Amino acid sequence: MSPAAFPPVKVGLLGLGTVGGGVTRVLARNAGEISRRAGREIVITHAAARNLDTTTANTAGMRLTEEALEVVDDPEVSIIVELMGGYEPARGLVLRALTNGKHVVTANKALIARHGNEIFAAASAAGMMVGFEAAVAGGIPIIKAIREGLAGNRLEWVAGIINGTANFILTEMRGKGRDFPEVLAEAQALGYAEADPTFDIEGIDAAHKLTILASIAFGIPLQFDKVYIEGISRITRDDVAYATKLGYRIKHLGIARRDQSGVQLRVHPTLIPQRQLLANVNGVMNAVLVKGDAVGQSLFYGAGAGAEPTASAVVADIIDVVRTLTADPDNRVPHLAFQPDALSDLPVVPMDEVETACYLRLQALDRPGVLADITRILAECGISIEALMQKEAPPSASVVPIVLLINRVREQRMNAAIAAIEALDSIRAPVVRIRLEYLDSD
Amino acid sequence: MSPAAFPPVKVGLLGLGTVGGGVTRVLARNAGEISRRAGREIVITHAAARNLDTTTANTAGMRLTEEALEVVDDPEVSIIVELMGGYEPARGLVLRALTNGKHVVTANKALIARHGNEIFAAASAAGMMVGFEAAVAGGIPIIKAIREGLAGNRLEWVAGIINGTANFILTEMRGKGRDFPEVLAEAQALGYAEADPTFDIEGIDAAHKLTILASIAFGIPLQFDKVYIEGISRITRDDVAYATKLGYRIKHLGIARRDQSGVQLRVHPTLIPQRQLLANVNGVMNAVLVKGDAVGQSLFYGAGAGAEPTASAVVADIIDVVRTLTADPDNRVPHLAFQPDALSDLPVVPMDEVETACYLRLQALDRPGVLADITRILAECGISIEALMQKEAPPSASVVPIVLLINRVREQRMNAAIAAIEALDSIRAPVVRIRLEYLDSD
Repeated sequence: MSPAAFPPVKVGLLGLGTVGGGVTRVLARNAGEISRRAGREIVITHAAARNLDTTTANTAGMRLTEEALEVVDDPEVSIIVELMGGYEPARGLVLRALTNGKHVVTANKALIARHGNEIFAAASAAGMMVGFEAAVAGGIPIIKAIREGLAGNRLEWVAGIINGTANFILTEMRGKGRDFPEVLAEAQALGYAEADPTFDIEGIDAAHKLTILASIAFGIPLQFDKVYIEGISRITRDDVAYATKLGYRIKHLGIARRDQSGVQLRVHPTLIPQRQLLANVNGVMNAVLVKGDAVGQSLFYGAGAGAEPTASAVVADIIDVVRTLTADPDNRVPHLAFQPDALSDLPVVPMDEVETACYLRLQALDRPGVLADITRILAECGISIEALMQKEAPPSASVVPIVLLINRVREQRMNAAIAAIEALDSIRAPVVRIRLEYLDSD
Repeated sequence: MSPAAFPPVKVGLLGLGTVGGGVTRVLARNAGEISRRAGREIVITHAAARNLDTTTANTAGMRLTEEALEVVDDPEVSIIVELMGGYEPARGLVLRALTNGKHVVTANKALIARHGNEIFAAASAAGMMVGFEAAVAGGIPIIKAIREGLAGNRLEWVAGIINGTANFILTEMRGKGRDFPEVLAEAQALGYAEADPTFDIEGIDAAHKLTILASIAFGIPLQFDKVYIEGISRITRDDVAYATKLGYRIKHLGIARRDQSGVQLRVHPTLIPQRQLLANVNGVMNAVLVKGDAVGQSLFYGAGAGAEPTASAVVADIIDVVRTLTADPDNRVPHLAFQPDALSDLPVVPMDEVETACYLRLQALDRPGVLADITRILAECGISIEALMQKEAPPSASVVPIVLLINRVREQRMNAAIAAIEALDSIRAPVVRIRLEYLDSD
């Protein structure tokens, strides 16, 4: 079969910003390689942008409009690529495209995490596909790896560095010994963090991606509302330095783990042993570590954002869609890896019931008996200490930092101990608690 | 569609050794998860082993035979899984299965590297698929990642640790400061190396896998004969120690790289900067680093061998085949990523014309003028030195080691310089040359 065996496939594009520009560029530059792989040409024939005057994308040969609906309703187009971001009008346009009998490819993690259940149901009803590889970890083909490449496994857990901005900030804090606000300002100046960085640094973006990873790993519906989310804004350079001294790195992880009572879904700063590959994923790079019962641990690493890495994932999805154009819809890879009516109602475990080890940092008055009080409280709560490090205070200081590593304990019990410790006269600031994962046992 | 929407798919298995046992175990243990994903049950109904008395696999419910042909000719079976290894009778059985109208899944890298062109042509003619994910890097879904996940990219190079035995040996040599023969014996005792370890330590197994990776990355036919192959048996613990001192690790890499004149295909020990993730892939683990023009660098890491990691890849391939049972054959993912008639005749670059940096270790008499001779020869060949390290000799020794890092130079020129250096009176042993790759530029 020659590359010209099938007529060209016509694609409609919604959004001509950074990623939209990347997609038009990659499709044009690699047109030869892509048609040699896909067996036909893939051409963007119709594109919409909110403001055509400001777009810098190469739109040669495309019909252009500021009305997204015109593209969605264009009868010539068989695939809609949604790169607008946000919930609305993206949701409405995607649903309409599906009803119009068009396949959809999207990079919109917020949309899929919040409205994916509705969108996939609409897609199934219409016999259409929705590709969303670009929604998680940019150019890393992690959706495909989990959904197809590891389809023979019972997956046990997934742990990922899935927000490049947060990873860049933590990397800089460690590398340069600087504090969070300073590094955040630098990241904003470099364009690695948005003017309003809340989604990235408070873990919401990571939670969107974790929601999607957990669904395809375990065959459960998308449940963004149930993700426990903690950001990195309270991490200090002291925490980073203590972690290093103890042989760990602090990473902002999204973790989905099956335990005896259900599925844990959590995003929080995490100490991991520095010998782990995941601990050595630096800067804006992303990586996802997956544990399957047959394969063991696999790691997938690459650029988590940026115009062309995201375009790489979008174009791969377009090619996948193109290949199934003539296939029996029932035989496609299901959107959430498992057949829609074979999803599991495995409950999400409340955070109170999750067990983890952790790191604690306390600010205590430098006087006798403080350590005795702390260790008594921990003992009373049945909590055992793995390591304790009391730093010498500078001569003038009346407060000394105490750092503890705590063995695995249920969250609820740790919360009670922290409350009791914070109630002590000698403790002068909120206790800093950072959870710890070894990642090499289950 | 419920998991029972389609009738069960019947699979015939050739080979009930370690991997065959892994496949039967994984299919049985994860039957629920697998049918929830694939939309139907997958059942091994007929299996062949050379000697049924010695198999320990759980074969409950299967017809068993010592005649592989009976399985291949079984009209009830729609997929043949070939896990026998070796060239024949595997080749003949696979070709016959295809002619019989059965899809094939194989873990046999030697077979695909040597006879893949013939096998894929037969598969295309018969309208059948051949899955070979398990042939490269065990459980890592690297074939799928390159062939589908990165299909929007023009791939520039692939560099992989794709033989676990060699990586284990190099890791132990560095970790324990021991020499090659000692560590090889240990690897044999642990079952990580075969009684005849030639395929692993001399790079033949890695070359099989590299042949396959290069084909799917660049869209060229399989050309095992053209791979430059160098093993690890001449690496000494001194080389490992010097590399470490210079900030590098020695890894046995398979490298496929596009350059201005064609495709480089080479397997050899390689110094890589120790800050690279790939440098930190230790023990029997595998990893493949891929550079695409859109995605940048992506790394895929996991277990490269073993019964269940290999089974993970085999089962994923079976599920892929099952999904396309009703699809239009022209729309499938092409075996070598690119459409069969769109393969490229990009030439393989002769090793003489490849340019690399390298590490040299010389054993020189401890007398004046030696360094002057060496640097003169290098200068005359137009070769520039990046670093030079002359070790102090123990008081009694008359021979001192000299270690050099050489900037990028064409192989031919380096060979000439090495020959001239070895002809010096003062040089008392063959020059050790280990190539060097930075992996972060092009």
